[in-house]
Amino acid sequence: MEDKAQIQEAIKSQGEVVRKLKSEKASKDQIDEEVAKLLELKAQLGGDDGKHQFVLKTAKGTRDYNPKQMAIREKVFNTIIGCFKRHGAETIDTPVFELKETLTGKYGEDSKLIYDLKDQGGELLSLRYDLTVPFARYLAMNKITNIKRYHIAKVYRRDNPAMTRGRYREFYQCDFDIAGQYDAMIPDAECLKIVHEILSELDLGDFRIKVNDRRILDGMFAVCGVPDDKFRTICSTVDKLDKMPWEDVKKEMVNEKGLSEEAADQIGEYVSMQGGMDLAERLLQDQKMCQSKLACAGLSDIKLLFSYLQLFQVTDKVVFDLSLARGLDYYTGIIYEAVLTQAGVAPVTAEAQNGAPGEESVSVGSVAGGGRYDGLVGMFDPKGRKVPCVGVSIGIERVFSIMEQKAEASAEKVRTTEVQVMVASAQKNLLEEKLKLITELWNAGIKAEVMYKKNPKLLSQLQHCEESGIPLVAILGEQELKDGVVKLRVVATREEADISRADLIDEIRRRTSEA
Amino acid sequence: MEDKAQIQEAIKSQGEVVRKLKSEKASKDQIDEEVAKLLELKAQLGGDDGKHQFVLKTAKGTRDYNPKQMAIREKVFNTIIGCFKRHGAETIDTPVFELKETLTGKYGEDSKLIYDLKDQGGELLSLRYDLTVPFARYLAMNKITNIKRYHIAKVYRRDNPAMTRGRYREFYQCDFDIAGQYDAMIPDAECLKIVHEILSELDLGDFRIKVNDRRILDGMFAVCGVPDDKFRTICSTVDKLDKMPWEDVKKEMVNEKGLSEEAADQIGEYVSMQGGMDLAERLLQDQKMCQSKLACAGLSDIKLLFSYLQLFQVTDKVVFDLSLARGLDYYTGIIYEAVLTQAGVAPVTAEAQNGAPGEESVSVGSVAGGGRYDGLVGMFDPKGRKVPCVGVSIGIERVFSIMEQKAEASAEKVRTTEVQVMVASAQKNLLEEKLKLITELWNAGIKAEVMYKKNPKLLSQLQHCEESGIPLVAILGEQELKDGVVKLRVVATREEADISRADLIDEIRRRTSEA
Repeated sequence: MEDKAQIQEAIKSQGEVVRKLKSEKASKDQIDEEVAKLLELKAQLGGDDGKHQFVLKTAKGTRDYNPKQMAIREKVFNTIIGCFKRHGAETIDTPVFELKETLTGKYGEDSKLIYDLKDQGGELLSLRYDLTVPFARYLAMNKITNIKRYHIAKVYRRDNPAMTRGRYREFYQCDFDIAGQYDAMIPDAECLKIVHEILSELDLGDFRIKVNDRRILDGMFAVCGVPDDKFRTICSTVDKLDKMPWEDVKKEMVNEKGLSEEAADQIGEYVSMQGGMDLAERLLQDQKMCQSKLACAGLSDIKLLFSYLQLFQVTDKVVFDLSLARGLDYYTGIIYEAVLTQAGVAPVTAEAQNGAPGEESVSVGSVAGGGRYDGLVGMFDPKGRKVPCVGVSIGIERVFSIMEQKAEASAEKVRTTEVQVMVASAQKNLLEEKLKLITELWNAGIKAEVMYKKNPKLLSQLQHCEESGIPLVAILGEQELKDGVVKLRVVATREEADISRADLIDEIRRRTSEA
Repeated sequence: MEDKAQIQEAIKSQGEVVRKLKSEKASKDQIDEEVAKLLELKAQLGGDDGKHQFVLKTAKGTRDYNPKQMAIREKVFNTIIGCFKRHGAETIDTPVFELKETLTGKYGEDSKLIYDLKDQGGELLSLRYDLTVPFARYLAMNKITNIKRYHIAKVYRRDNPAMTRGRYREFYQCDFDIAGQYDAMIPDAECLKIVHEILSELDLGDFRIKVNDRRILDGMFAVCGVPDDKFRTICSTVDKLDKMPWEDVKKEMVNEKGLSEEAADQIGEYVSMQGGMDLAERLLQDQKMCQSKLACAGLSDIKLLFSYLQLFQVTDKVVFDLSLARGLDYYTGIIYEAVLTQAGVAPVTAEAQNGAPGEESVSVGSVAGGGRYDGLVGMFDPKGRKVPCVGVSIGIERVFSIMEQKAEASAEKVRTTEVQVMVASAQKNLLEEKLKLITELWNAGIKAEVMYKKNPKLLSQLQHCEESGIPLVAILGEQELKDGVVKLRVVATREEADISRADLIDEIRRRTSEA
C-alpha cells in the first residue's frame, strides 16, 4: 500500500487537473475520466479513514502455540520431565532477562545474536541466550556446589529464522545438568542414560549417541602437529564433518586455515574412527596418540564411561566417534550428541528433498547434545572457585516438529481437552437441571462440559462431542428426570444406557479409566 | 569502590609525596607512614588486578526460583490447571514479546511501564504486559470466534518492585477466558465457579468474591448526576473504597474531581450496599436507579447470574457489592474480585504490621479478578468484528507467597524431588552392582538415586535420604548379593527387611503408593 502522504499529494494534484479541465470547459467525457481517477484516489485514502490499521502478526521468528500444538508440547514435556524426575532431578527457574554483563563474553561471535532491552533508565538488560549461563550465574550467586537440576524454558536468539525447519528466535531449551565434585564418569554416564531413555520413550525412530572428549580432540591435534593457536579453528572445521565430506574439510584446513597437508592427513585418519570401548583401548596403545597425556586421560575416561554405559544397558546406541567436535568453547571433557538415524524421520526427509543435497541432511537429525564444562561457574565466582558440571540439552523444538508432523500424518485426532463427559439435554428448558448435574460432576472431580446455550439442539451437542473427542454424553430429558436416571451415551458406538443418578459418577469413572 | 583511574591518579601523587620526603631526608617514621599509604593504594588496585568483577545478581524486580519454590509452584499450578481442565479448557501460548504497536493504546497511563526491546534493526518489540491483549490479538489474527482457554505465563512491568509483598517486575499471570457469543451469564457464572473451586482447593483460608457490573456503575453515576465525561475518573475514585474510608473518597470526588456534594452523597448511599440476588431485586425497584436502562440491564444480569450461582452451589462466598469498580477500561459488563478475608493470612498480617495502618490492608488480600470485555478483540479486527469475552485471572504470585510462608511455618519439609528409593551399599567396591540395580529400577519406572561416588559411607547415603525425604533405601552388601536379596530400609522407622530381587520392584511400588 502506498504511503498516505503520497496519496494526499496525488489527490491534490489530481484535484488541480480536474479544476483546470473544468475552467477550460473541457469535454464531459474528459472531465468524468479525471474525476473518476480523483474519486479512486480518495477511496484509497478513505478506506484507511485516518484510523490506524494494526499489523496482525507475531514478531519475526516467533509463533503462537495453538491448542493442538500445546497438547503435543504437554505430552513431550511430560515424557521428558518424567525421566528427569525418575533420576531425582530438582528444577529451578531464572528470569527471562539477565544483566547484560552476565551474558557478555560467554558466547564468542554469537553475542551479536543477543536481544538487548531498551535502556529505559536503570540496569542494562538482555534476554537469556541459553539456560547454561544463567545456571552457572545461579550456582555462583548462591554458592551452590552440588545440584542435579533440570530447567525447561524459552531462550532468545536474533538468528535468521527458518521456521519450517523448526528454527525460531524464541524457542525452548530443555536442560539437565549435574553440578558437583564427584568420581569420574558416573554423572557423565547418567546423562547419556537419560538421553537414551528420553529418545526411546519419545519413539522418534532409531537414534545414535556420538561420544568424544575435548581432551582427546586437543591431544590429537597436538600429536598431529597442529600449532596450539590453531586448535579452536581446526576443531570448528572438524565439527563440519557431519555436513561435508572429508575432502572438503581437509581443503578448508589446508587452504583456508593454513594447516600442513601432512597434519591434515593424520587428523583425517583419526577422525574416521568410530567404535566402542575397544577403540578407546586400541588408541591407548596407539604410539602417536600416547604422546599426549591429555589424550590418554580422555581415552581412559572414555573406557570408564563405556564400562558404566554397559551397566546402564545403553551401549547399543552409543558410539565413540573421533569426528565429534561440538562448537561451544566451554566444554572441558566428555562431549556428546544424539542424532536420529532413521531415513523416515520427517525433518531429515524434508531437508533432503528441498534443501541442497546432503547439506545439513545429517545435522537436522540432531536431537540432543551436551558435555562436561568444569570452568564456566568459576567465571562467575569472585574467587574463581570451580564447580564441575556435566549436562545435556534436549533439542525439544525439533522433537515438537517431528511430533506435530507425525500427528498430522496420523489418522488419530489430537485431543486438546480432557473432557470425559458432556452434559446434554434432549428437550428444551432443561438448563437448570443440566447445571445442577454438571455441578455434581465437577464437585466429584469429573471433567465435564455443558453448552453455554439455554436450548441447544441435541445434534449440535453430539457434534461438539465428536469434534473434540469427548467419549461420553450424559443426556437429561423429562422422562429421565422423573425416573431419577441419566441416559449415558457412548459417542463412538452410539450405545445408550440409563444409569441411576446415584451410580453416575462411578460409571463415568469406570468407563473413562478403561479408555 | 573507587574508580580505577582515580586510584591510579592517587598512587601517582602519593608516589611523589614519598619521593619528596626521601629527597628531603625526612624522618623514617614519616616516610614509612607515607609508603604504607602508597602500598594500600596499590593493593586496592592490585585486588582488582585489571580483571572485570561481575555483579552477581538478577535484574531489579526479578528473582530466581529455587527448587523448594519450584516444588510449591508446581503444586499450585497442578491444582489450578486441574480445575481449568475439569472445565474443559484448552491452552495456548504466545511469544514473550509482541510488536510494540500491538500493545499501544491498550493500557492507558500504565503504558509507561511496558518494557521495550532495543532497536537492533527490524521490528520494534515490547515484552508482554499481560496475557489478555495477546489473547485478543491471537483471536483476531486467527479469526477465532469461540474458545475456552487458559494461559499461564510470565508478564513484565517496569513497576516499582515491592518484592517482600510479592510484587515483581517479572511475574506469572494465570488466565482463564471464555470467548464466544453465548446466552447471558452462563460463561460468566462458570468463571465464578472456577474461582470458588480454585480458592477452596488451594486452602488459603476463607474468601469472598465481590461482584458488580460496569453498566450498573455507569448507570448509577448517570442517575446520581455525574457528568458523562467524569464517569471514568469518578469510577477510579470509587475503586479506592477498599483502601480508604468513604469520607476520604468523598473528599477526593468533591475537592479534586469537582463533583457536587449532592451527587457524591447519592453515590455514597449506593456504594455502601452489599447483598445477593435480593439486593439486585430491590434495586430493580429503586425509582432512581430505574431511570437508567443501562443499570437495569446490569441488575437483571446480576439476578440471572445469582440464579446460576445457586445451581453451582457457590453463593455462600459471592456478594453483590456496588463499591467494586475494577480499574481496567476494557470491561463492559460483569466484574468481580476475590479477596481473602481470614485475619490469619500472612500477606495481610505483614501489611497490617509493617505498612501504614489500613493502607492496602484489604487489597493485598485480593487473589483473583476479572470480568467481561466484549470490545477488546474488535480493536484488533480490521473490520472491528467483536468477539464477546469473559475471563478471570488468578493472582498466582500472591498465592505463591502465601504458600511459601505456610511451608516455612509448617514443620513438614517441602520435598524438591520425588525419589522413591536410594540405592546404597554397606561395603566398598559395590558401585557396579549398584549401577546394575538402579538400571533395573529406572527401567521399571521407579524414581531412584545413587551417589556419584565409588565408595560412599553408608551413613552419608542415609543422611542424603533424610535430607531429601527419600522414603526407602535399597541396601546392597556381599551377603545380600550372595542371597539374591536386597535389604529394603524404611528411612522414617529404620525398619529393614530382606526382599528378593524378583519382588523388589513390586515391593517399592507397594510401599510408595501407600505413602
